[in-house]
Amino acid sequence: MMRCRVAIAGFGNVGSAVAMLLLSRRERFIRLYGKDVRLVAVCGSRAGTSNQSGLEKEDLEALDPGSSGADFLLSSGADVLIEAGPTDFRTGGPGLDYIRSFLAAGRDAVVVSKGALVHSGRELRDLARQTGATLRISGATGAALPTIDLLEHALQGCSILQIEGILNATTNYLLDAMITDGTSFSDALAHAQVAGFAEADPRYDVEGWDTACKMLLLANFGLNADLMVDDITVDGIQDVTSAMINEWRQSRQVPKLVGRLWYEEACPRIRVGIEALSVDDLLAQVRGKNKAIRISTDTMGEITTIGCGAEPTATAAAALKDLERILASRTASVS
Amino acid sequence: MMRCRVAIAGFGNVGSAVAMLLLSRRERFIRLYGKDVRLVAVCGSRAGTSNQSGLEKEDLEALDPGSSGADFLLSSGADVLIEAGPTDFRTGGPGLDYIRSFLAAGRDAVVVSKGALVHSGRELRDLARQTGATLRISGATGAALPTIDLLEHALQGCSILQIEGILNATTNYLLDAMITDGTSFSDALAHAQVAGFAEADPRYDVEGWDTACKMLLLANFGLNADLMVDDITVDGIQDVTSAMINEWRQSRQVPKLVGRLWYEEACPRIRVGIEALSVDDLLAQVRGKNKAIRISTDTMGEITTIGCGAEPTATAAAALKDLERILASRTASVS
Repeated sequence: MMRCRVAIAGFGNVGSAVAMLLLSRRERFIRLYGKDVRLVAVCGSRAGTSNQSGLEKEDLEALDPGSSGADFLLSSGADVLIEAGPTDFRTGGPGLDYIRSFLAAGRDAVVVSKGALVHSGRELRDLARQTGATLRISGATGAALPTIDLLEHALQGCSILQIEGILNATTNYLLDAMITDGTSFSDALAHAQVAGFAEADPRYDVEGWDTACKMLLLANFGLNADLMVDDITVDGIQDVTSAMINEWRQSRQVPKLVGRLWYEEACPRIRVGIEALSVDDLLAQVRGKNKAIRISTDTMGEITTIGCGAEPTATAAAALKDLERILASRTASVS
Repeated sequence: MMRCRVAIAGFGNVGSAVAMLLLSRRERFIRLYGKDVRLVAVCGSRAGTSNQSGLEKEDLEALDPGSSGADFLLSSGADVLIEAGPTDFRTGGPGLDYIRSFLAAGRDAVVVSKGALVHSGRELRDLARQTGATLRISGATGAALPTIDLLEHALQGCSILQIEGILNATTNYLLDAMITDGTSFSDALAHAQVAGFAEADPRYDVEGWDTACKMLLLANFGLNADLMVDDITVDGIQDVTSAMINEWRQSRQVPKLVGRLWYEEACPRIRVGIEALSVDDLLAQVRGKNKAIRISTDTMGEITTIGCGAEPTATAAAALKDLERILASRTASVS
């Protein structure tokens, strides 16, 4: 049986969940794809571990200091990288070096963090094309919510006219708490931070950058655009006041942080900002930590998808969906 | 450049829309798949036309009486059948012979009508497997609404725990008109018949059989089940009275015709019937001729998709999505 060796870069909540889910699905991979999938290396920024014949759950409990970096993972013999490190869209973050190294070596990459894809998406796409490697990004574009899958697959053949996305769980939770319970922005944020789903530094989420990055990836990877973050007009929710909330409630409107993509003279444009939706708009029904995407097409009408999975498992499941596609295509190319 | 020859069986509204859309996308097929796609034959139950070097729009205006049947289409040299004839789930309908003949000859089939798939799905799946042919059914399982795509692709790797589907536009329109405007069942039905989206004989829709057939196909093709129509408990909306409508309105509930799939001791079970949903349930927001599906999974949480495209174009677009996948896989196997 052919082997497929997997390495994981970034070993926080998501990376660990990817490892656990991957180990639990080994029988499935054999049954469906005839592939013996082995986890051969994992690392965070400072420590890691590897074993060319395969790591088990207990091997992941203690990592070796200094075992980290792209060369460390490449030398494990991994065929596929799953990158789940911290995101930094202004520099590409630590993921960039891992992804670039794997793709340059003709090995496949499944990417969960957005930084490298936003910063150097064009370079990485070109690199994958040159070396014949596969680059998949479901985990970076909405995780369990299907987004790029809809563009690439469910709506295949359609012309996309418009995309509206509620793609950031934290800001949706905050706005929902403010509009539903009358909670102030600062109280809602403090609660989300205590509950662990808002960052200590919440600016990336609340100022709209996370939504902007996801919309950019949908445009560049799903619609073959070539946009930069600075092409996007980005407004967040940090300046929402109680007076604004009261006004929306009185006019039966629901504020949502919406990433909106449309075309102007055949060029895609994106903006991110609060939109006050009518209460009977489907997107107004997206509650709490749910996310949603609405796509308007030429021939299939309008499709709205709303969803939410428990994290970090849902994001790990999105990454493993990408891994399954790599396993399936390798099966096809061998047979 | 490699050619791909397509034949269409069933040349009513949907079949004609498939032909028009296919002809309009020929440049796209060349650009994306390097395939010169030719429409080589079309036929209805009594007449058809064929041309091995390709039919144009004007060739479809007058069909030759007697040019019909599986042998007629096979002799056109078609590599792919798109079947869009009338549906009859008790006999398989006219589609069964077309689909069986193409698959037996190792040629691919894209199926829009449900009859043959419901009646003989197991046989057709086995036949395709034996001959290496591809059988795709997006058009038969919700058309533009992604349903089987979600199971096969967007939720790949998940265990499916439950599916709820509002899959029939006519019944959803009727219930919505009754609950929103207080229209009686017979008035709403008469209006839908005049407007052309309810059949003269509406029993297939209003008694729940269309929903049952779609749920069955999702189970058998998307979840590898082996159910028969008679395994499904089917109730329709034909007995809804004004008194029932009033009661639902007073209790702030919304009646929907729901196809529900769940597991009992690892075996999938399906029932179709009216469910009274809370007004804040997302499925209660599915208005008019929209359709929806909600899928509960182990690792990706719950995904709800709601949509509607203008018919018959939306169904034709679903069939051509399946054709594109066939074109893509043929490209892969050649390169």
